[in-house]
Amino acid sequence: MTVTLEPVAVVVGGRIEAEDDDWNKEHAVIALDETRFTSEAIAGLDAFSHIEVVFHFHQVDEGKVQLAARHPRGNTDWPKIGIFAQRAKGRPNRIGVTVCRLIKVDGTRIEVAGLDAIDGTPILDIKPYMRDFAPRGETREPKWAGELMAGYW
Amino acid sequence: MTVTLEPVAVVVGGRIEAEDDDWNKEHAVIALDETRFTSEAIAGLDAFSHIEVVFHFHQVDEGKVQLAARHPRGNTDWPKIGIFAQRAKGRPNRIGVTVCRLIKVDGTRIEVAGLDAIDGTPILDIKPYMRDFAPRGETREPKWAGELMAGYW
Repeated sequence: MTVTLEPVAVVVGGRIEAEDDDWNKEHAVIALDETRFTSEAIAGLDAFSHIEVVFHFHQVDEGKVQLAARHPRGNTDWPKIGIFAQRAKGRPNRIGVTVCRLIKVDGTRIEVAGLDAIDGTPILDIKPYMRDFAPRGETREPKWAGELMAGYW
Repeated sequence: MTVTLEPVAVVVGGRIEAEDDDWNKEHAVIALDETRFTSEAIAGLDAFSHIEVVFHFHQVDEGKVQLAARHPRGNTDWPKIGIFAQRAKGRPNRIGVTVCRLIKVDGTRIEVAGLDAIDGTPILDIKPYMRDFAPRGETREPKWAGELMAGYW
């Protein structure tokens, strides 16, 4: 069984090439597909400070998708980790999910900051960030995760 | 342009029918597709307390997808809101994203609690929940969002 999706929007602006770190300063626009949507599809979105963006890592070649466990970023100081225990882009289905700041809504365009997706990225879904969708209960994570993320934003 | 995905896993157990509220008590198993993945794909996942699950609302008929703004849950006490400013399931591409608790990893099976997806749901991606992927900066949301979510978990 396969699932066929049609992008609902595209990233315009921001970074042109994927690099690992320093994403928080990036500004970009999420432009809705105007052949299918009007501003009504995002009515009320500007009452939220943050949105969750589901996107497609379209520049990752399907042949580059990782199935074997590997050291995150090739760093042998960190353990070998399965692809579903990492957030790396070379993953089956090549889906990214990120919460970023909503700066402004203008018609069918959403200006955002801190989105780690490059110019031209197809957007599969846009959701408002609700506090109640944060983790329930205290979170725990391995040391390598915090070390890897230290310069990410 | 379309994006074709192949589910990586399926939800086994938990709730059989989609209902709006009281999801936090549900237990289920996320069973990896063993024709493609071994336990290596989730090596190291058990060091995380929570995972982020990307899934397909497969029981929502494509014809039921909403494009016009509407009152969330039909409640006229709340404003008319666009589909991308809600997290309702009747949305273009029918993608759900939820953080749930990881209870146990056993081979290619991940036992979870508090996943708001029913038995048989196709899973499109599994990511570890990392603290650094929480919203950067303070969050703001409209009153209706908290009211709607009051009984959700």
